[in-house]
Parts: sequence; structure tokens; C-alpha cells
Amino acid sequence: MAVYTEVADDDLARFIDSYGLGEVLSCKGIAEGVENTNFLVHTGHGRYILTLYEKRVRREDLPFFLGLMEHLAKAGISCPTPVRDRRGVILNELAGRPAALVTFLDGIWIRRPRPEHCLAVGEALAKLHLAGRSYAEARENALGPTGWQALFQRFEARADEVAPGLGAEIRRELAELVPSWPKGLPAGVIHADLFPDNVFFRGSKLSGLIDFYFACNDFLAYDIAVCLNAWCFEPDFAFNITKSRALLKGYGAVRELQPAEQAALPVLARGAALRFLLTRAHDWLHTSEHALVKPHNPLDYLRRLRFHRATRSAGEYGLEAAR
Amino acid sequence: MAVYTEVADDDLARFIDSYGLGEVLSCKGIAEGVENTNFLVHTGHGRYILTLYEKRVRREDLPFFLGLMEHLAKAGISCPTPVRDRRGVILNELAGRPAALVTFLDGIWIRRPRPEHCLAVGEALAKLHLAGRSYAEARENALGPTGWQALFQRFEARADEVAPGLGAEIRRELAELVPSWPKGLPAGVIHADLFPDNVFFRGSKLSGLIDFYFACNDFLAYDIAVCLNAWCFEPDFAFNITKSRALLKGYGAVRELQPAEQAALPVLARGAALRFLLTRAHDWLHTSEHALVKPHNPLDYLRRLRFHRATRSAGEYGLEAAR
Repeated sequence: MAVYTEVADDDLARFIDSYGLGEVLSCKGIAEGVENTNFLVHTGHGRYILTLYEKRVRREDLPFFLGLMEHLAKAGISCPTPVRDRRGVILNELAGRPAALVTFLDGIWIRRPRPEHCLAVGEALAKLHLAGRSYAEARENALGPTGWQALFQRFEARADEVAPGLGAEIRRELAELVPSWPKGLPAGVIHADLFPDNVFFRGSKLSGLIDFYFACNDFLAYDIAVCLNAWCFEPDFAFNITKSRALLKGYGAVRELQPAEQAALPVLARGAALRFLLTRAHDWLHTSEHALVKPHNPLDYLRRLRFHRATRSAGEYGLEAAR
Repeated sequence: MAVYTEVADDDLARFIDSYGLGEVLSCKGIAEGVENTNFLVHTGHGRYILTLYEKRVRREDLPFFLGLMEHLAKAGISCPTPVRDRRGVILNELAGRPAALVTFLDGIWIRRPRPEHCLAVGEALAKLHLAGRSYAEARENALGPTGWQALFQRFEARADEVAPGLGAEIRRELAELVPSWPKGLPAGVIHADLFPDNVFFRGSKLSGLIDFYFACNDFLAYDIAVCLNAWCFEPDFAFNITKSRALLKGYGAVRELQPAEQAALPVLARGAALRFLLTRAHDWLHTSEHALVKPHNPLDYLRRLRFHRATRSAGEYGLEAAR
């Protein structure tokens, strides 16, 4: 939620002209996207989001992300569509950063999701999974179980600064979760970060999905597990089974979960909570005092993780009716 | 350049509906406005800027600012126009903050102004001064000479943390400038903060002025002095007399400077530099390490102040031809 990189007006005009989009009518840095610098640009041809990729995004991953958005948009998923410049190129450079221009998506994100929003998210996630099947590129999930240990080591010595005992609790989780992680579940392209701020609505109708910069190949059900964490807990950390049931119902209406996926939901949800706990604890400890973005509180995910640790079946997420 | 206050989607929808502007199509927090939270809102009726006033703006000043924008817009100045809600009210409340909605202005601000931009700014400033004559409300300039001493006292003890000797240099400036400050110059409503990021252009044509939240009543020529500081120094702090000449020429084409105003330019420019040095040094020392906005370097204005201290006449700002 910050402008990390400023763009000079004449550089911007040249850049937009290289796409044949006419005069820049306005350009506002927008307070969205923790990782990158985003501008909302109006030109004579319409509205676009201009993204400058900052150092946290690996340049070699950008073709996967941008290609995926283009692929999904062609497959009918409402998501930002990369614009090709006059030469047909998607990924360019501006102000010394890799840069791309994507179409602007109407809609606002829902601060207080209701079950009908969760239903719509479940549907959209399943459609994304189906549309992703035909995407030719692949990208490993660097934040999956095989990456957790290395991520933890980067802050293990200081983990208890976040909360006393956190280091030991994460060690126990890693020791239990990694060996018991499911194998052989249906896999494909997942969004991996489908939080409420990445889903736009007009009223209660979902109007689009954004921010594919964590997308990767992994178990499809893991993506559901991320959403259960992101959409189905109340501000007081109470799990809301009505929202969870709606999310799973929406998903199941488009793509039926296999029994193995259903059985794996508790461990996947616990793993997803651990993944966000790890990255947030890392960022919490490593964010400069002068950072433009305040880190999220990692303990929100410790609370979620403890909930999932106690669940025994997908029924506890509201899936009993579908079995 | 930050979103200090989040607005829930349903609160936003209700707020926009109270203006009769239809559905909220999108709402982006924008990274502009150091003092307030600004959202760019698209509705079925058009584009608007929604501003939530944060604590640094005094609520009792808001009717002056908003009334001024409405007055100037009616007088033909291109600036954001406050929108009245269904009841005819301009100033409302949202998310616990005073809030107003203004029209969106096309244009981008110029990162590297050229003389033609300075000419256009001079013209626009003079037009603003003429249009402001008929505005009935008034507001004292809290950041004028009578306020400098009090502002300095808030950080005097720590001034040398900004730069060794800064405290003594400011004390000398106050002792010289305050008693020699001009009296009886033509006065009226001034913008008082017309920096490049507050002036929009389409190409080299000025398309509008924004951010009237420092506007007040003071000497009109003081507003020119602010612009000389803001527009006519290069990144290496060299004064660019070509830009200054253009700015004064643009101004003079609309409103002729009186001899007393011309004679006062050096001391006004020096005072304007001191005013920004004081507020920036204060903010530099008082900004929390966790602030969302990084403070400007106050020493940029010490360099300007020293330049103006050495000037003896308006001729050194390029005004000789007009005398």
C-alpha cells in the first residue's frame, strides 16, 4: 500500500504511447498491493493499472504471472488482462523496474464478507482451477511445505520476540505437518492468495479476481484451505462455519471435491495457516521501522492454526452435506 | 501518501448513495495527500475524490476550504468542486472522520517542470488571486511570520539534530525577518502551498489546481514567493532564473505587481523558505518511526533560504523587464 517508485510524467507519457493508448489523462499512485507499486492510469482509451514490480517479485516469475492472467481472461475468468504494446510485448520496463499494464476491473473488495460473498468466492475459485488446467506454464509453490523450514530458519532465533513460545510451537507444527502432508491430490494452477482484498464485488455479485503474484502449481484443495483461513474467521478469530459451508458449497457446485481432498482439508487448512504465520512473522521481524507498509500481525494466523489443529474432518468445515 | 482510515464497503455505498451518485463501481485509496486519506471513487455518475480529513486538519477550517473550492470553481478556476449531498450539505462524516466528495480533475503533475509550466503556474496563481477577491470567508495564515516563533519553539531544543548550527541560523532569521516583514501589501485569499504536485497539466497546458487545505488570507505576493521556492530551484538547489522569469511573467500578464510587492519579493521569498524549513524540520523531528509518510528533508529549504538571503532586488528573480 505504497508508491515505492516514482515515475516522471514524460517517461509515463512515452510508456503509454508505446501501447498506442493515447494521452495520459491522469495517473494516481494507489494504496494497494503490498509488494509492488501500482498506478491507476486513465488514457483516452480507458482505465488501466500500471504495475512496477519491486524487488520482492522475482523478474523470472513475471512471464508466468502475466501469461496466466492473459490465459484466464481468455478462458472467461474476470481478471486483469495484460495489455500488449505495439510490438506485442507484455513485460516492459519503466523507471528502472519491470513494468506491465493491465486492464482495470470495476468492483470493490468486501471488508465484512457475508456467506453469499463466500459462496461466490468458492465458485470463482473452482472456475479458476478449471480454467487453469489448460495453462501450459508451471511454477513451483515456494511457500509450500518444502519451503517452510527454510523460511522459519530465517527468523527462528527471534521467533519468541513475536510471542513467547512461538518458536517451539512452530517447530512442533513443522515436525507434525510436513511428514503428514497429503500426496497425490489433484493439482494445478492455484491463486494461493485469494484474500478478500483480491476479490472484487459489485453488490453481492463477484466482479473479478486480482493479484496473481503468488499463483503457482499445487494441490487445488490447498487453495480452498487458504480461502477458509482468509474468508471464514471473524475479527475475534471465531471460525464461522456458515461462511465455510457457503464457500465449500460454491466450490463444489463447479468442481466436486474428491474424497481424498475432503479428508485432507483439516491438514491443508492447518498448513495454510502455518504458511501465513511464517511469512507474517518473518515480515514482522524484518520490516524496517521506516517501511511504508505496516506488517500484518502474525498472531492472527497462530489463532487460526490452533483452530485447524483441533479439527478432525471436513465436516467441521461444513462439508458433511456433500459427502 | 497513505490511507490512514479504512472505509467499509457498505458504509461507502451508503455515503455515495446519500449524494445520489448511484452504485460505487470502484474505490481506490490513492497515495496522494500527506495530510488526509483520499480515495478515487468511480460511480455510475462519474469520478470523484473522496477525502477523509485526518487529525492534522482542523475541522472548523473545513467550511473555509470547501467553500473556497466551490467559489473558485464557480468563478471559472479549474479546481476540485465539492459535491453537495441530497440535502445540499458539503461536509459530512464517514468512518468517524469529517469527509467530503469533490469532482475528479484530469491531468498529471509535472515532476520536472520546464519554463512553460512555470509560466502557466504564474498565470493560474494570478487568476486564483483575482477570483478569490469575491470570496466572503477569511482564514488567518497560521504559518505566517506571527506563527513562526511558536512553531520554532516546538523543536528549538532539538533543531541541531537536523543539522549542526540549524537552531542558531533559524534564530538569526527570525530576528531579522519578523521585524522587516512588509506591511500593507495587497492581500487576499492565497493558496499558500502551490507546489508542483498540486498543479495538474495535460501536456504543457495547465488543467487544474488542487489541495486548498493551506489556503488562507495573506499578501498575494507571498503566494508568488512560495511558488518561486517550489518551482524555480533545480534538484541541485541551483536557482533557475529562466523559470522564475517565466513564472513572474505569467503572473504579471494577469495581475500587475505593484512596486511595493516587487520590492518585497526577496524578503517574502526568504520568509517562504523559512516557513517550509520550519514545518519540515518540525515534522522531521516529530515523525514517528512507524509513520506511513516519510518526511521531506528540511535542509532543501535551508539551501533556498540562504539563496534568498543574498538577493537584493526582484531583478534577481528575473523581474527587471517588468519594472
